[in-house]
Order: sequence, then C-alpha cells, then structure tokens
Amino acid sequence: MPEPLTSVLSRRAEIVAEMRAIVPGEGVVDAVNEMRVFESDALTAYRQLPLVVVLPETVEQVSAVLRFCNDNGVRVVPRGSGTSLSGGSLPLADAVLLVMSRFNRVLEIDYANRAVVAQPGVTNLGITNAIENEGFYYAPDPSSQIACSIGGNVAENSGGVHCLKYGLTANNVLGIEMVLVNGDIVRLGGKHLDSEGYDLLGLMIGSEGLLGVVTEVTVRILKKPETARAVLIGFPTSEQGGQCVADVIAAGIIPGGMEMMDRPAIEAAEDFVRVGYPLDVEALLIIELDGPPAEVNHLIAEVERIAGQNGSTTCRVSMSDAERLSFWAGRKAAFPAVGRISPDYLCMDGTIPRKELPRVLAGMRELSVKHGLRVANVFHAGDGNLHPLILYDANIPGELSAAEEFGADILRLCVRVGGVLTGEHGVGVEKRDLMPEMFSEADLDQQMRIKCAFDPNHLLNPGKVFPQLRRCAELGRMHVHRGQLPFPDIPRF
Amino acid sequence: MPEPLTSVLSRRAEIVAEMRAIVPGEGVVDAVNEMRVFESDALTAYRQLPLVVVLPETVEQVSAVLRFCNDNGVRVVPRGSGTSLSGGSLPLADAVLLVMSRFNRVLEIDYANRAVVAQPGVTNLGITNAIENEGFYYAPDPSSQIACSIGGNVAENSGGVHCLKYGLTANNVLGIEMVLVNGDIVRLGGKHLDSEGYDLLGLMIGSEGLLGVVTEVTVRILKKPETARAVLIGFPTSEQGGQCVADVIAAGIIPGGMEMMDRPAIEAAEDFVRVGYPLDVEALLIIELDGPPAEVNHLIAEVERIAGQNGSTTCRVSMSDAERLSFWAGRKAAFPAVGRISPDYLCMDGTIPRKELPRVLAGMRELSVKHGLRVANVFHAGDGNLHPLILYDANIPGELSAAEEFGADILRLCVRVGGVLTGEHGVGVEKRDLMPEMFSEADLDQQMRIKCAFDPNHLLNPGKVFPQLRRCAELGRMHVHRGQLPFPDIPRF
Repeated sequence: MPEPLTSVLSRRAEIVAEMRAIVPGEGVVDAVNEMRVFESDALTAYRQLPLVVVLPETVEQVSAVLRFCNDNGVRVVPRGSGTSLSGGSLPLADAVLLVMSRFNRVLEIDYANRAVVAQPGVTNLGITNAIENEGFYYAPDPSSQIACSIGGNVAENSGGVHCLKYGLTANNVLGIEMVLVNGDIVRLGGKHLDSEGYDLLGLMIGSEGLLGVVTEVTVRILKKPETARAVLIGFPTSEQGGQCVADVIAAGIIPGGMEMMDRPAIEAAEDFVRVGYPLDVEALLIIELDGPPAEVNHLIAEVERIAGQNGSTTCRVSMSDAERLSFWAGRKAAFPAVGRISPDYLCMDGTIPRKELPRVLAGMRELSVKHGLRVANVFHAGDGNLHPLILYDANIPGELSAAEEFGADILRLCVRVGGVLTGEHGVGVEKRDLMPEMFSEADLDQQMRIKCAFDPNHLLNPGKVFPQLRRCAELGRMHVHRGQLPFPDIPRF
Repeated sequence: MPEPLTSVLSRRAEIVAEMRAIVPGEGVVDAVNEMRVFESDALTAYRQLPLVVVLPETVEQVSAVLRFCNDNGVRVVPRGSGTSLSGGSLPLADAVLLVMSRFNRVLEIDYANRAVVAQPGVTNLGITNAIENEGFYYAPDPSSQIACSIGGNVAENSGGVHCLKYGLTANNVLGIEMVLVNGDIVRLGGKHLDSEGYDLLGLMIGSEGLLGVVTEVTVRILKKPETARAVLIGFPTSEQGGQCVADVIAAGIIPGGMEMMDRPAIEAAEDFVRVGYPLDVEALLIIELDGPPAEVNHLIAEVERIAGQNGSTTCRVSMSDAERLSFWAGRKAAFPAVGRISPDYLCMDGTIPRKELPRVLAGMRELSVKHGLRVANVFHAGDGNLHPLILYDANIPGELSAAEEFGADILRLCVRVGGVLTGEHGVGVEKRDLMPEMFSEADLDQQMRIKCAFDPNHLLNPGKVFPQLRRCAELGRMHVHRGQLPFPDIPRF
C-alpha cells in the first residue's frame, strides 16, 4: 500500500461533506463501526478501514465523485461485492471506498442479439437467473457466483469451471460503460461483433480497478446445452491424470469442464460430502461433455479410451442429471472440505501451459517436502489453471511465512514452465511483489505507461498490482531506473 | 496523411545508409522502380512511394531500425503482405516502410497445447497448411487467406466466414512478441490461458500498426470438425432473410458460417460460376453447420424449420462435400463476379447488432435511390458484418464521389442502429475521417492517450486511424480542444 496522504487525512471532514453533497441519503458511510464490514475482502489475512465509504446510485454520482477526487488528489478504491481473493478491493486508509452494490438492476434482456445489459452490482448468478426460464445462461461461473458482482468479474477477468469451453469474462463481455478518473463517461464495445479503434474494452477487463470504474456491462448469453454428462476417472498417479488432460485436449475435444483433484483433496471432499469418490487413487478427473446427446455419447467414448491409454483404474459415467451433479458436489465443496482437515490454508492461483501439468505436479511434491507443509490440489485442469491449497496452522510460529514462501515457489515454478502468476484471482496485493518474476522491466514500464494514460496521478486503487509506482513524467522519457519499493508492508491481521 | 517532414527528406541518403548498416544484403530497397511494388495496398485508389523499403530478417534488426527511427524522428509504416483494404499499410513519403515478409517461418507446432508459433510474415493459410495432415486448422479465414500474413491479421483483427462460431483473430491469438518504437522487445501472452497485468495483447490486436511491430505470433489451433453440411435458402425479400438470421441465432444455434447475398450479388455470382443459385429470390442465405454428424443433422432440421417460418421459398441441403463446396464457390467468387457487372465498385465494411439486419437492408435501398447508384450486398450475416459493394463508373464524372458519399451514409446508418464503422477491414486511411461519427471527444482523447503511451512522438504509422494528431503533452492535461485536421488530402490516383 502507498503511505497515507496526511494532507488527505486532515481534510477528512471536508471530503465526507463533499461526498454527502454528491450522494444524498444513506449512500455515505463514515462511522467506524459501520465501515467495519468493508475492511476486508476474501483475502481475509488483510484488513484496513477506508477513509469513507460511498455507495452511489447513478453514473452521474460516480462521475462527480471521481471528478472531485481527481481534482483534489484523493485516492479511490472501487469495489463490487468484495469477494476478491487477491486483496484487489482492500480499502486504503486515505482513500474513498467506492462501493457499486446499489447498481443492482438488469437493464435489458435482448434474446435476438443474445445479450443482457446489467448494472455492475448485479451478481454473476443474477444474470443467469434473469434468463434461465427461456433456456439461456451466462457462461463464466466463478465459485463465488452467488455473491460476486459482474462488475468485479470484469475487473478481475474471472473464470470458472465452464471457462475451458466457453471462455473467461473477457470472452463473454460485449461492452461496458465506464467512468474515467477525470469524470468523463465513455462507452466501449456494444452488441455488435467488434469495434474499430484500440481494444480498450479488452484492456479494461482484468485491469483490477486501476483504469476506471465500470457502470454498465453488456454480456453475451448462451443457450443451455441440450445434454450434459460427466465422467469420473481415477488414476494411480497425478502425472497420469495430467497426461490424460493433455491428451484429451490434443485429441481436439473441448469438454464443458475438466477438473482435477489430488489425493488430499479427494479424501477431504469425500469425507465431507460422501458422494462416492474412489479413495484408492492419487488423482481424480471430472470431465463434463455437453451438447446434443449423440455428440455427448460419442465424446464420452473417446474420453474413456484416452483415460484407459493413460492407465485409469476407475471410470464412471453419470447416468442421470442427479448423478452428474453429485460428481460436482465434491469438487464444489472442496475448499470448505480442506478447511476441515487443516486449521488454515492458503489458496494459490497460477496458470501453466496444459502439457506441463505432470511436470508441475511433480515439482509441487518436491516443494511440499522442502517447506514441510502439505498441499492439496483442486484445479481447472483443462485450462491449466492451478489452485494449490497450502495447509498450515497460523498458531504454529513460522508456518504462515513458510506457507507464503511455498506459495511464491509454486508461482515461480509456473512462470518457469511458461505459465503465469494468476489465472482468475488477479494480482491485487497478494501477488504484487511477484510481478517482476514474470515481467521484464520493459514490460512493467509499458504497463505503467498505460496506467498513466488513464490515471496520471495514480489515484485509482494505488498499491495494487504493480510493485512500485513510477512517475508518469519519468516514463515519458522512455527510460526509467528501478528504485526501492515505496510501499511499507501491508498490515496483516 | 501528415505532411512530409522536409528535414527527413533531406536526410534520405544518410537514413538509407543507416538502414543498410542494420539490414545487410538485399534487405534495403531504395530504387524508385523497385519500390513501385510497395506503393499501394488493396485499397488501390491510393498510391504513395515510401522514403525507403526495409525488409529485416531478425528481431534484432527490427529493434535496431525502430530505435534508430525513434532517436532520429523518422516515421515508420509497418507492412505485412500489403492486402489491407483500408489503406492501413499505405506508405508515406517521409517514412521507412518496414516490410515483414522475410519473417516467413513456422517456428513450432505444439499439438498438446493446441498452439502454433509462427513468424508474422507466414500467410494465414500457411498455418493451416502446416498442420492439416494431423487434422487441425487455424480458424479465422479472411478471403485473402492465401496471401495475407498472420502479422497483418493481428494488426487488423481480421475475420472471415468461420469467425461467427470460432471468433476473430483476437479470439485465436494466444501470444505475441513485439518491438516497441524505442526498440524494446516485449512478449505478451503465451500458451497459457490468461495473463496478469493489463491486457496489452488484446490492445495490440487490431491496433493497425500504430503501437508496435509484431515479430512472432502464437495462435490457437482447432481440430477439424467431423462433418460439415451447408444449406442454401432463398427468400422473397431481404428482410425475411435478415429475420431468419436473427431467429437462428436467437434459437441458440451457432452455425460454422452464415452468409447472405442479395439479388444483384446472386445474379452476378451465378452468371460467373454457375453453381445453381436460385434466380427468383431477393436474398440467399448459405448456412453451414459443423460437428459430429448426429448434431449436424439435428441442427439442419432446426434451421429448415426456422427458414420455413420466415417464408423461405427454396431450401437445399448439401448431400456431399463437393456440393457443399459448390454452394460456397459462388459466395467466394462474389467480389470478382460483381467486378464483371460494373466498371468499378467500392467495398464497404460495417458491423451492426444482428437483429438490425432487416432495418439496415431497407435503409440501404433508400440510400441507393438517393445516390442514384446500385449496391450489391455480400456479407457475414451471422455476425452482422456487412460488405455492401457500391457499383460505379470512375469514368463518369462525379460517380466516385457519389459512391464515397453513399458509403459514408451506409456507415453512419450502421452507427445509428448501434453498430460500428468497420468489422474486419480496419479504419486505415479509408474511414479515418468518419471516426468522430462513432466516438465522442472523450473516447478519442482516451485512445490517443494510449497511443502516446506507446509512441509519444507519433512515429508509427501516422495519419492512419485517427482523424487528427494531438500532442501527448496536451492530452496529459486531460482537457484538449479539438483543432483543425492537420492532414492534407490523401493523393488519389
């Protein structure tokens, strides 16, 4: 986090009064006990009270808040439902927390263009709920879909079980309305296919609240597939499971979902939900095929053949929709299930080229021995997005920092095999200081020049994503020297 | 085009010598008769000789050329195969033309990650050729795919008949290596799913050579579908055909391709290739369904039902692959076929929300009467990308400007119904001055700030895409006033 601007802290009363003038009624929260609910997001190890919480209701209010803050050097942290796993919506002591939860209406349902227009505070599942009676749905499905907002999905480029076949948020958003830090309101994309000019829509998706505030989202909707069947496949080793994933993809099959769990995760899940997972395997794959029945049956036979070639020891195909959902129940409950076998766990998020799965799984076992901590793996195998859960006990001195070191080593391994630091949870504060592992100085400078093009005074969500601030004027000279990190340690509770 | 920099013109000999020092052998072309071949792209109404043509062979050479030009205030126009339809690769009198055609090798074929790594000068079809013996292909298929380069596809975000189902270039490129104007070499994306940091990869795709020079492209490859069958459907009115397109999409069907032709285009094509198109209809749809046979047959029945509801008068389903290809032969020959019935034609490129098709087709007929010129329509109906061909005779005084006015009116109509100025041909010089029809001042300022973040001296492909240059320093103040266009008319031959 950047150091608080003391000049802003001393002007708090004036800023709060200005916010109340812009957002009347109950839209401004400044009492400490009422702000407590906003002090964390889902990266619960970190807490910070904001300067003031503002909950606007109209785009004009968002514009006025940003214009005031930009003109007065006040920092702003945008926030949706606060379900970020990387601390992306963590407040700052000297920043207005701009909470978009009152933007909660579905504005338009347009089946002929297969599009829904929604305000950013609508939940991910809220969009599907609005259209499922007509047989449509919105494809990206983060595990937090009951709670997370579509605006937050845009900020983090969220994924989910079905993103292997249907794409991430970036592939399913057609347009947005956003407010720039100077208060300008711009529209990017729309219901049409593509747009001339630079792809600012793509740039905004996954920009973690550093480039602007989204006030409207147009998403692509899909027809629900006619059939979906799942196959549960067990392997004696994780490497065989990983190879099966690579072979399914290489065969040209794109399952609706392809998830993998390792032995610790299988045992924890089965102990929790009792859905009949095999307990004598080291790796379990759940592969879902969807489409017309004839296609699904054909692909299931192909998947069974490939699994057999990779030494699978069990293979069960769901014979009803209830059975299919039971296969998924264990996977979906895996995080809380792991929570039952360990006092604490750290959920990591890295992505690798799919064919490197066996190598990375083997490397992770070596790291587990090195750091003396167990790791359970539950991940989106099909798209190479790993979620290793590092098990530790915060009450044993040194275990939290060992877990964090272990996590950093895993992410470095991901980068070494040609992967990246995150798949769908964002960088936020959690992986901020690992960015140089992935990006060269030229890369980071170029990203920072983009940041300066949107927010030259670094007022939007500062201290997130980038390991250091660089002055825009310096970047303009195209040659910068890397200095010391200007951020003190983030307070951890 | 910006006015030539006289100081650069006077230093030509020195610049040519510097280029020869960087790119030895035959990689520098400065003789006028040898440069003639580069003076146009596929927007053939415009011609301009460059300062000098440079054909580098290595990324280090590209970096050295750009660094020299950046340090010395020399403009650079990047070029692939020169097939741009919007003048995107049109040379400038005072600019180095950086031709990437010697970057022509496929570097890596990686089936397990479903990826191909290619140099930017490889043709679009060259990628499919390298992998088709294993049953794979690269999906986006511009009509120019025999000639156009994958680097040019990245610059223009090129589309094609199969992009309705499989996406544009932006959806099929996983990573690039590019050289910034200051000579820095950066890598964006890779074989993994997504990347942290800003989506600079998405930003580069469709940036029309204004942000950097691509030196390597990693693309996603797909397994060829098991079956493909096409349906040829005729309608008494264009509106019924347009409604059928909207209804097919609304029913949740995503055909591999869905193309439409109107009566003038049908007649010209049938007269040219004689494939048996019906001549008693006003609109002809070609809809291709692909996938496993059972799925394809099921979807064909659905499409036939929807066509019948919209008053189709003929409906033929291909019974063999030869017949399917004959259905496409007329469509693929439609541009040259129209060239046989009119001395000249202007090919437009606009995109609209799909359900607006009937309204836009009706509007175009009114405009045809207003401007006294015929128009033939051949377009990617499924994704709302129109290619109206305006027929005129350049030898009749006033007809070219009438055709250009007609074209501008069509594009304004596209914007009015919620569409955009281009689908896949880019803005280039052709639609540059229409950008304010689509974008507000705040929009254009923000795009120009991005341009400044990459190329603060406006040396890369100046005069293309944006209707005016704005000084980066002015934009930094976040408030700019719109001045006069600094560009003289582009020379037309």
